[in-house]
Amino acid sequence: MNFNMKEAIEVLERTPQTLEYFLSGLSDGWLQCNEGEGTWDVSEVIGHLIEGEKNNWIPRLAFILREGGRKPFPPFDRFSHLNMKSESSIEQKLLEFKTMRTHCITRLKELVESESQLKRAGSHPAFGVVKVKELISTWVVHDLTHIAQIVRVMAERYRADVGPWKEYLGILNR
Amino acid sequence: MNFNMKEAIEVLERTPQTLEYFLSGLSDGWLQCNEGEGTWDVSEVIGHLIEGEKNNWIPRLAFILREGGRKPFPPFDRFSHLNMKSESSIEQKLLEFKTMRTHCITRLKELVESESQLKRAGSHPAFGVVKVKELISTWVVHDLTHIAQIVRVMAERYRADVGPWKEYLGILNR
Repeated sequence: MNFNMKEAIEVLERTPQTLEYFLSGLSDGWLQCNEGEGTWDVSEVIGHLIEGEKNNWIPRLAFILREGGRKPFPPFDRFSHLNMKSESSIEQKLLEFKTMRTHCITRLKELVESESQLKRAGSHPAFGVVKVKELISTWVVHDLTHIAQIVRVMAERYRADVGPWKEYLGILNR
Repeated sequence: MNFNMKEAIEVLERTPQTLEYFLSGLSDGWLQCNEGEGTWDVSEVIGHLIEGEKNNWIPRLAFILREGGRKPFPPFDRFSHLNMKSESSIEQKLLEFKTMRTHCITRLKELVESESQLKRAGSHPAFGVVKVKELISTWVVHDLTHIAQIVRVMAERYRADVGPWKEYLGILNR
């Protein structure tokens, strides 16, 4: 086990600005490509990250600390952002993500003040018993998963363009 | 085929500062973790990216434009950065990468001035005929591959910490 709160926050606080720097001002070709029918483009991934800040991580953390394992916390719809037609530009979405994340990190620090709270258990609707520490670790790895998804989606766009080098490019050989 | 020079440069020029923002100031726990024996940590990945700027992309591009397919260009040692014991901090490496990349993009624009040059063919020591356009596309996807690698290596560190959520985290389920 490697989790500690300080290092987890190091990643959480870097993700929005990292994505802002990487994605702001990119051509639509990069922002609108996807991995085929039913897959997300870059802009949809940012929409999903915003939804997580609003309805997943902090609400679940607060729920566990309030209710413990007495009742399961409500499920999080991982596809809800697809139902909301958004006309926002990528820059607007990245700004919203950054603003929400700053707010959520402040809440995280307010809610978890002691090491013992990290061991508090809640009840996940599908998994059963989960710990606060596991929820926060998952928040971090969830960021990393979606950064990986964004660059994988973009790489896919050049699958044919790289010619024989495809063989050396791990991201195209999953 | 989706390649065009303007969009390729959009990615190439963003990568160093994106990584600088994401990695500068991270704890050693994040910078020194890897995926097991014989795999690279974050700092080694940046070393490899620096080597590419010095000895791979622009030297090969210049070679193809100068020699065409008359002789194969020299192989690039993808592991050479591991032979150089480096005491540089991650911040120093990121700065070197950014400086080299800026220089290489300037050279790229000097070397490739017309659409017709993108179709010029060279001889890869292993693959045989390759085109300038394929080399530049590969440079872009190579950036994306190594960004994906960095976040994958970091995610691996929390494999046990996320508990049952592992099931939902694609980056841990390759």
